Amino acid sequence: MHIFYTPQIANGQCTLSEEESKHCIKVLRLVPGDKVLLIDGVGGYHTAEIADPNPKRCTLTITNTINNYEQRPYRIHIAIAPTKNIDRTEWFVEKAVEIGIDEITMLVSQHSERKNVNLDRIEKIIVSAMKQSVKAYKPVLNDITPFDKFVKTPRDGRKLIAHCIESEKHPLKAMVDDCNEYTVLIGPEGDFSPEEVALAAANGYSPIDLGPYRLRTETAALVACHTINLLKQ
Amino acid sequence: MHIFYTPQIANGQCTLSEEESKHCIKVLRLVPGDKVLLIDGVGGYHTAEIADPNPKRCTLTITNTINNYEQRPYRIHIAIAPTKNIDRTEWFVEKAVEIGIDEITMLVSQHSERKNVNLDRIEKIIVSAMKQSVKAYKPVLNDITPFDKFVKTPRDGRKLIAHCIESEKHPLKAMVDDCNEYTVLIGPEGDFSPEEVALAAANGYSPIDLGPYRLRTETAALVACHTINLLKQ
Repeated sequence: MHIFYTPQIANGQCTLSEEESKHCIKVLRLVPGDKVLLIDGVGGYHTAEIADPNPKRCTLTITNTINNYEQRPYRIHIAIAPTKNIDRTEWFVEKAVEIGIDEITMLVSQHSERKNVNLDRIEKIIVSAMKQSVKAYKPVLNDITPFDKFVKTPRDGRKLIAHCIESEKHPLKAMVDDCNEYTVLIGPEGDFSPEEVALAAANGYSPIDLGPYRLRTETAALVACHTINLLKQ
Repeated sequence: MHIFYTPQIANGQCTLSEEESKHCIKVLRLVPGDKVLLIDGVGGYHTAEIADPNPKRCTLTITNTINNYEQRPYRIHIAIAPTKNIDRTEWFVEKAVEIGIDEITMLVSQHSERKNVNLDRIEKIIVSAMKQSVKAYKPVLNDITPFDKFVKTPRDGRKLIAHCIESEKHPLKAMVDDCNEYTVLIGPEGDFSPEEVALAAANGYSPIDLGPYRLRTETAALVACHTINLLKQ
């Protein structure tokens, strides 16, 4: 069955966005009565039937709902300095949504070569990966944030920073325990600066290593995301 | 320091390939006496100096050698049905080399939409990722192989198959133990066929699941590779 994303569900009815409506009616040529799957981004997994096949605002009637669909009992937030080549960051986003992530922040760090990101494009990648891997919860995507502001913001749970500067670090796998909230900072190609590492430490971030290999920014972010998921499952 | 790959080392000397020579002399403009790093693909990690700056066959003198550089005490072989969009398979190869892999086979399975792969291009991606992540061992890349032939070939260690057909499966993480050799089969977008799953079982392959998420082919392959590395470290 085809799957659509819509946050707009009320009273057993929903309306697809203009883009999803066009895809549903013009491309897939679905007609009234056809059954589809819907994810709403807040944990709802629905079956529905086409009611009004309007190619700009297609409406559907919900026939069944499962709430809290595949809800994870833990939360992962990755804050990553986006890569110079944005494809690599976009790839990370797609894969992290498939594997399981709750919040993504794009960081601006001292050594960042990239200080801006097209967040609309990242949102589309998130929705596409949600549909592909049937995720009913939509990860939060935050606006691009300066490193200093990010680390000074109070957060619950385990706060971790991955960097390559020589220092005492804990393997990430040793830091995954019964805590259910993890925030991991991943630096740019040129790594975090010593001042940033010190600022993170002063704000309660523990340095971690991600194994005995040298990883690109986007690989490090995905390895962190997968390690926490694997060990919490 | 710049890093080059060359399998041609003998008597404390080596010659770079035409492509590496051009990059070394014409692009980087290195001159006699300049120091570089070399990886030889069989575990050797060398420091060397430019001897003859020939832009087609640059020769170098080895000044120091570390053998068995970062050798892993276990072995991972992923056999993957390449994806319709080859970029996705190439991405898997790059990331697997970064994280750690020993052998890759491209499989042709009943539901494969792609039955050929440009292996020269995959070789280049392997070497590029080796240099980027400083891996002294070059993973073996096998020619494209029919599924039946692959599973009937005798192999040591744990033989595992990831598929989506409903059946009793073991989580991969429960299958990683004191065994030091792992072969994992990853199917195409349309999954392995029931006949292939049965043939694999008859040849000693155990079905595994990779967690509670629906993963694309290339994501499944990377998750398998990272899970084994993480648990064996």
